[in-house]
Amino acid sequence: MSAALFENSKGKLVGVGTGPGDPELLTLKAVRAIENADVLAFFCKKGSSGNGRGIVEAFIRPGTLEMPLVYPVTVESDKNGEDYRGAIAAFFDQSATDIAAHLDAGRNVAVLSEGDPLFYGSYMHLHLRLAPSYEAEVVAGITAMSGCWSMAGLPLVQGDDILSVLPGTLAEDVLTERLSGTDGAVIMKVGRNLPKIRRALEKAGKLNEALYVERGTMANSHAVPLIERDASPAPYFSLVLVPGWKTRPAGGEAS
Amino acid sequence: MSAALFENSKGKLVGVGTGPGDPELLTLKAVRAIENADVLAFFCKKGSSGNGRGIVEAFIRPGTLEMPLVYPVTVESDKNGEDYRGAIAAFFDQSATDIAAHLDAGRNVAVLSEGDPLFYGSYMHLHLRLAPSYEAEVVAGITAMSGCWSMAGLPLVQGDDILSVLPGTLAEDVLTERLSGTDGAVIMKVGRNLPKIRRALEKAGKLNEALYVERGTMANSHAVPLIERDASPAPYFSLVLVPGWKTRPAGGEAS
Repeated sequence: MSAALFENSKGKLVGVGTGPGDPELLTLKAVRAIENADVLAFFCKKGSSGNGRGIVEAFIRPGTLEMPLVYPVTVESDKNGEDYRGAIAAFFDQSATDIAAHLDAGRNVAVLSEGDPLFYGSYMHLHLRLAPSYEAEVVAGITAMSGCWSMAGLPLVQGDDILSVLPGTLAEDVLTERLSGTDGAVIMKVGRNLPKIRRALEKAGKLNEALYVERGTMANSHAVPLIERDASPAPYFSLVLVPGWKTRPAGGEAS
Repeated sequence: MSAALFENSKGKLVGVGTGPGDPELLTLKAVRAIENADVLAFFCKKGSSGNGRGIVEAFIRPGTLEMPLVYPVTVESDKNGEDYRGAIAAFFDQSATDIAAHLDAGRNVAVLSEGDPLFYGSYMHLHLRLAPSYEAEVVAGITAMSGCWSMAGLPLVQGDDILSVLPGTLAEDVLTERLSGTDGAVIMKVGRNLPKIRRALEKAGKLNEALYVERGTMANSHAVPLIERDASPAPYFSLVLVPGWKTRPAGGEAS
């Protein structure tokens, strides 16, 4: 339903999780939000049309106004630098201002967010700026980690297992300690941290069961035991999964 | 596509995540798997038709053979007892045998799993028993925790945050230590553990930002700051969410 039907009313903001890459992993609610959007906003890098937009392409209604939000920096930037923090804050401020102009004009705005919007997603920075002043809804999405363990058929956690989601950027001793003290684990931001992650898993006694997943749920995805993978650098969006259930007695539990 | 088209071929097993409750949070892939199933299996308690089946009801094709898998025990059972472990292992063995008979006869079997099948889901016990012998696919689903933070509009984790998923059944000192050493947290299995969880959060200095969510994404769901909630027992499927991002400097990061 278009907000333009109601004179003088503001548009609605919807943060739409696009899931990990396969358009079939969009929810029914995400598809409807995209179809009903007057304005479709999406994050992208300079010179790219954005992964999120690619996932939902088949569902964009003709006539929808498209609004690329182009990151001023790359994932490789020094995130602790003053310049980085200033540039990214200004980018989110300006994006929120641009979206607010559409909402004020009564247009519904859908903002695409790869994976799940409020789980490590850029959308959250717009939500924090706009939700106090406008009607806002978040459509949950399948996370990249869930797409990966499902593609690999790897049961991750069960019963009373503890799950830890850890960035591969942690120091080696911290990573080792965290891996020792958890049942299941997901290690994100693998990239050039792979050799360190491997050493931490070995020290924690969990290298043998760790699975390395590259581009989960994309057409060219693959999963291999980490111990069998070579030492070449990993893509930024690869993951390492450590199942918790294997250490449990046989038979399992009703959850 | 029905496997019955291919003579002498076995059926395919599909573990289908139904998401947290709202049928609109089913993925397109889940809907297709349900529509293409010859046999639809689902877990349920005695005397109930199952939450998973209720979520997908509108998409069940007439003529689909329904196969309730009735838990022999309840969530309140002593899970460390010998009797419990024996009964639940026998239940999964028998369920796998029954499903294998359909697969051998060339029928496609979809097994519903609330939330995400390989994330604390009962489906994983059937997957482990059947995937070595039959074609098996897992359709990722929206987890209950993701449904809850999306419904509440609560950004959970960003950038290099650590997320810990913890069962409320942990001892108070362990829970306190885990909560102290993480950025974001999800506490599951709240139920009668609520007073203990509250004390652990207070000791970890995180009570003020914790959110209590009851029946996320169901019609009668609600979310309140935990500090405002009364001391009455919580339902088994309530969650406590602790956001990690609030402790970060303003401005955020590109993810």
